[in-house]
Amino acid sequence: MTVRQLSMPELVDACRELGIGNVGLWREPVQTYGLEETTKLVRDAGLTVTTLCRGGFFTAVDPDARAVALADNRRAVDEAAALGTDTLVLVSGGLPSGSRDLHGARERIGDALAELGPYAESRGVRLAIEALHPMYASDRCVVSTLAQALDLAERFPAHQVGVTVDTYHIWWDDSAPEQIERAGAGGRIHSFQLADWTTPLPQGVLNGRGQLGDGSIDMREWTRYVAAAGYTGPIEVELFNEELWARDGREVLAETAARFIEHVFQ
Amino acid sequence: MTVRQLSMPELVDACRELGIGNVGLWREPVQTYGLEETTKLVRDAGLTVTTLCRGGFFTAVDPDARAVALADNRRAVDEAAALGTDTLVLVSGGLPSGSRDLHGARERIGDALAELGPYAESRGVRLAIEALHPMYASDRCVVSTLAQALDLAERFPAHQVGVTVDTYHIWWDDSAPEQIERAGAGGRIHSFQLADWTTPLPQGVLNGRGQLGDGSIDMREWTRYVAAAGYTGPIEVELFNEELWARDGREVLAETAARFIEHVFQ
Repeated sequence: MTVRQLSMPELVDACRELGIGNVGLWREPVQTYGLEETTKLVRDAGLTVTTLCRGGFFTAVDPDARAVALADNRRAVDEAAALGTDTLVLVSGGLPSGSRDLHGARERIGDALAELGPYAESRGVRLAIEALHPMYASDRCVVSTLAQALDLAERFPAHQVGVTVDTYHIWWDDSAPEQIERAGAGGRIHSFQLADWTTPLPQGVLNGRGQLGDGSIDMREWTRYVAAAGYTGPIEVELFNEELWARDGREVLAETAARFIEHVFQ
Repeated sequence: MTVRQLSMPELVDACRELGIGNVGLWREPVQTYGLEETTKLVRDAGLTVTTLCRGGFFTAVDPDARAVALADNRRAVDEAAALGTDTLVLVSGGLPSGSRDLHGARERIGDALAELGPYAESRGVRLAIEALHPMYASDRCVVSTLAQALDLAERFPAHQVGVTVDTYHIWWDDSAPEQIERAGAGGRIHSFQLADWTTPLPQGVLNGRGQLGDGSIDMREWTRYVAAAGYTGPIEVELFNEELWARDGREVLAETAARFIEHVFQ
């Protein structure tokens, strides 16, 4: 999604040129290019798919809506398995229209995971609950902290349900480092994503994630936390940013790789 | 600020007409009308000033900037004392430009409180640290949770430093109810404010606080929490909302009073 202006073949080409061997994919562009076609494309290019984003949206009350959501999540699991990634990232869903019951919404996520977890396991896929920034609590994800994500995940085996650690969503939280430790101790850090925090936030607050180094988050600090917690998996950069999307995609990908080296590894 | 389109005399008139006997004031409109003039106006009208907003902005590193901030906060304490309120609400400040050190910024707030607390006590004023929503962590307030606010406040006597509980900022936080209990047990709930959470958030996310009943927050639930924690003080409605500001101020004040009755007390 960081370079969603690139078509799937353009993305794969750009990764190859830049020596990037791993890529996190979103469902929509995969579906646009076709699941089989994407699978063949990345396989032929020797690219590893790190995660598939995203399943989730489990908070509906209506039984039909819940059944539709679960069926769609099973398809997402199937897609992840086809693409060869073992991790499906989940954005859990916001409050149903008119509801003020955060607790009930969080419980319905647990109910859905109880059904989806075993199915995912049967396909060799782990679910990764992503805590989203509290500014998304009403309309996108009632799981707002790593602690809440782990409270949910720990009801299930770690090989079924873990968490995504994303700097953009948790950087403000002084309890997040100890929650990363908790997640690591339980083998539940299933994915690690980077984005920087920049202001002013845009209208709707969806597409203002900053390029690494442009904002307030110390990327090395958070990378140290997950490393100290035993995480050795891929590190994804996931930017939703209108300004980046308006630029040449290959240029943005090259810049992102350079920023990654500068702000994470140097 | 909920009806900042009203001049101070218009506000006082409207309160009298609606039978509202308590009002929270902000420094800027008080300064615009004049401190002495405002003091006389509210006293003659029999209005009680519940709190003055806002002191704070303690996070600068530069010694001169810190001295300026402290001097301004002493003036804010003096203004609160003159207006007859015992509570000055504090918005602590964001990260200094280019900084990524949340921990250091929070410590500098503690340093400032150590100087300001005794001064405020000498003037009969209590300081109330307001945790602001995490979406303001970089540019406005590095104190993002009630727990962080209490961690700071508890370094000082409760009659010097407590907290503001504001539904808008903490409604997403499942640990907030126990933190309200902690605050109440320590006699540190110095103010309680209501605003509702509505989406989509506007650009800059400052002026989108919802009218009571329009959003995702259960006002009765949070009012119960503070009441159970022993709070018996005033309840303020503080809305920053461009749409409300564009309307007739008396009409908005009347609507707000009606919503307060409907969503808090009925």
